[in-house]
Amino acid sequence: MGASFTQITSLAKRRGFIFQGSEIYGGLANTWDYGPLGVELKNNIKNFWWKKFVQKRSNIFGLDSAILMNAKVWEASGHVGGFSDPLIDCRSCKNRFRADKLLADYYNKEDMAEISEGLDAHELLAKLSDYQIKCPICGKRDFTEIRTFNLMFQTHQGVTQDSQSLVYLRPETAQGIFVNFKNIYHSSRAKIPFGVAQIGKAFRNEISPSNFIFRTREFEQMEIEYFCHPDNSLSEFKIWQKTCYQWLLDIGIRPELIKLREHEAKELSHYSQATTDIEFAFPFGWGELWGLAHRGDYDLSQHQKVSGKDLRYFDALANKHYLPHVIEPSLGVDRLLLALLFSAYHEDEVDGEKRTVLKLSNRLAPIQVGILSLTKKQILVAQKLADKLSDDYMVDLDVSGSIGKRYRRHDEIGTPYCVTVDFETEQDQQVTVRHRDTMEQKRVGLDQLGVYLEECFKE
Amino acid sequence: MGASFTQITSLAKRRGFIFQGSEIYGGLANTWDYGPLGVELKNNIKNFWWKKFVQKRSNIFGLDSAILMNAKVWEASGHVGGFSDPLIDCRSCKNRFRADKLLADYYNKEDMAEISEGLDAHELLAKLSDYQIKCPICGKRDFTEIRTFNLMFQTHQGVTQDSQSLVYLRPETAQGIFVNFKNIYHSSRAKIPFGVAQIGKAFRNEISPSNFIFRTREFEQMEIEYFCHPDNSLSEFKIWQKTCYQWLLDIGIRPELIKLREHEAKELSHYSQATTDIEFAFPFGWGELWGLAHRGDYDLSQHQKVSGKDLRYFDALANKHYLPHVIEPSLGVDRLLLALLFSAYHEDEVDGEKRTVLKLSNRLAPIQVGILSLTKKQILVAQKLADKLSDDYMVDLDVSGSIGKRYRRHDEIGTPYCVTVDFETEQDQQVTVRHRDTMEQKRVGLDQLGVYLEECFKE
Repeated sequence: MGASFTQITSLAKRRGFIFQGSEIYGGLANTWDYGPLGVELKNNIKNFWWKKFVQKRSNIFGLDSAILMNAKVWEASGHVGGFSDPLIDCRSCKNRFRADKLLADYYNKEDMAEISEGLDAHELLAKLSDYQIKCPICGKRDFTEIRTFNLMFQTHQGVTQDSQSLVYLRPETAQGIFVNFKNIYHSSRAKIPFGVAQIGKAFRNEISPSNFIFRTREFEQMEIEYFCHPDNSLSEFKIWQKTCYQWLLDIGIRPELIKLREHEAKELSHYSQATTDIEFAFPFGWGELWGLAHRGDYDLSQHQKVSGKDLRYFDALANKHYLPHVIEPSLGVDRLLLALLFSAYHEDEVDGEKRTVLKLSNRLAPIQVGILSLTKKQILVAQKLADKLSDDYMVDLDVSGSIGKRYRRHDEIGTPYCVTVDFETEQDQQVTVRHRDTMEQKRVGLDQLGVYLEECFKE
Repeated sequence: MGASFTQITSLAKRRGFIFQGSEIYGGLANTWDYGPLGVELKNNIKNFWWKKFVQKRSNIFGLDSAILMNAKVWEASGHVGGFSDPLIDCRSCKNRFRADKLLADYYNKEDMAEISEGLDAHELLAKLSDYQIKCPICGKRDFTEIRTFNLMFQTHQGVTQDSQSLVYLRPETAQGIFVNFKNIYHSSRAKIPFGVAQIGKAFRNEISPSNFIFRTREFEQMEIEYFCHPDNSLSEFKIWQKTCYQWLLDIGIRPELIKLREHEAKELSHYSQATTDIEFAFPFGWGELWGLAHRGDYDLSQHQKVSGKDLRYFDALANKHYLPHVIEPSLGVDRLLLALLFSAYHEDEVDGEKRTVLKLSNRLAPIQVGILSLTKKQILVAQKLADKLSDDYMVDLDVSGSIGKRYRRHDEIGTPYCVTVDFETEQDQQVTVRHRDTMEQKRVGLDQLGVYLEECFKE
């Protein structure tokens, strides 16, 4: 039903959605660059999220915190001590693997968490042994013990050896929110329940980045920390489950491609009362798209303890100080973009020929209006039109090649409307508007085009 | 004429534009976090730039390349070998300084480049000696030789010691464009002259980050590489000078606060035919805001040489391959935001009391419409209004405190329009729209408010 991996990656490269990072130097370990169409799609996704959760919500505030933070942040959050992958070596061929990945591969699942969350190193090793799992390289069963490897990238800042301080590239945007909790609630005069939303890069030194932009070492997150009274936190959690699921439908993900997976008790972190993943049916299996976690007051209480600062909220009505509980909906931009490509990819047949269509919603499509002209004579009119429409839309002026081919080119990048200046335009002052999905064509007066498109984009 | 440094930083902190990074842990070396209002202002700046240079330009394409790139990129670009600060130690008190900074301080200038660009280590040292410049800490004149210190942050990726590879945090977004030159021109079928635009984070391990968000180790750039035929590159450069200058006026920078500074021949890099800085009159002196550089074919030819890939452009009309020249307008988001705060800050007197106004343009203001209600009875109406207007604007619902105080609160964050639901609204179905700059108040029918505001925002 969905597209194959090759269909998506080849379309992405060929049409300028996504290129291999540092490609002319042979790349760099699963890094990717977003090309002209990819960056528009990505920006549209981020704007759609920001509009829904920040602009449209009076009680969610935006934030853009620095990637480099004081190292104490990561000591307090538990990342220095505990944010690590379980690594195992094959004694025979000397290769190194993630133990949980070996187990997930055995089950033929992409999502390692589903298989191994809650298992400690001993239990993991026991499972590898129970299922007689072999080294995927040499086929032997001669593994070492499991060791843990911290996932945070390290760097040093400062100029002299002795004054240099160790800093980490943040492995998540969330902690930037927690350390600013008090600043935001004071400056915004926010009242519980309220949230803080952030979009930004995060970095994890994964042993096995894989599956195109699904698992990369550098990635972008859209995270919210929603602070609520402990008594209401579980009911807020349930509301967020519905909100997140609905938003994925709103952005255009097909419902049959997503499912909720509630974590079992043994998978939960000790501080979490509930965690739900929204998973997407990638060609390589169900993969986590959106993680929704009830984190209790774990983060704020940790930062309060380590920083020595009072991070409690003051409830003026009840005249009480308390640490709020927090619900964390955490969504990866890159993963969502990948899911959208799979969900939108469509093939049908037109006049006996295969047509590829990216059925992205109007506001998400990287090019919103294609402007076409038939002959050189009409280029000037088309240019004028493109210039005018580019005030409100992302347009592409496409003036050469057969008209059928140009429609196909726009179909496969998801352009919802193509406007063609043709032989009759000069006389009747009308253009043809062609709709991507229905392939319906309408004659519209040049003076009515603005209003016509405005109506189209309201849908 | 402009605001003082303290006025801006205290407003920024108090109202949630900018907080100290990792503040509860004592901060981290001049890092800053953008709060709820700061992130809106920053996003609006970036959108204004993107709209002008990508959306409205048919020959400039967007890109979002990875921060982590293959280390060979930085060998080819010259950053591994040459991107460094000249450091000098005081033998007497053991403190370390940037030699060019000591020289700039002597001249009482913020912009080090203006003073020392084009000087090598020997010439710098000679100047320090000629002017009898002393150690700013202990007052002695007993400096060491000058050593150079590379500005790139280093980190390692990969999991095992032996398989780890050294990577750098990119010190500029520009190289991401050069290595993608061919991918973009093929997938977009672009024709010279064309440009590639990118917004993204960059990192430089500066010895002396300073002046709030003016000079930070982590910062955000908006860069364009504009590829043109060598014969036209100087005339394109001159067009870009005008374009950039005009854009700063368009975004609302006061003309008396900016000036062009053309670099002298000895300041130019060996590959550059021309460089112009647009400088802004910060309270600490003129500082570079926008660097406009003619880079010749230096970058593409370096990458061609080191990667062994043919990066030439093919001119189908002339049937010729050539390496284009490039014009690089490079603008810092954080600096521009700071300049905008200084430029927009305004104090006047209303009824004998001081009024602070941030005269940001309508589309730039973090809150575009403030919705106020006078009594509890009107809150529901105000909420409904806020909900409706938030489809199109960033709104803030402000329902408590004296109305005068609320207007002041909105004035100082730059909200261009406040809509007040008052005692008569229920009867006459009208609200009061108050204009920030003129303080004029208009009664507008609730059913006309959408159209009224639309007109206001067209200005």
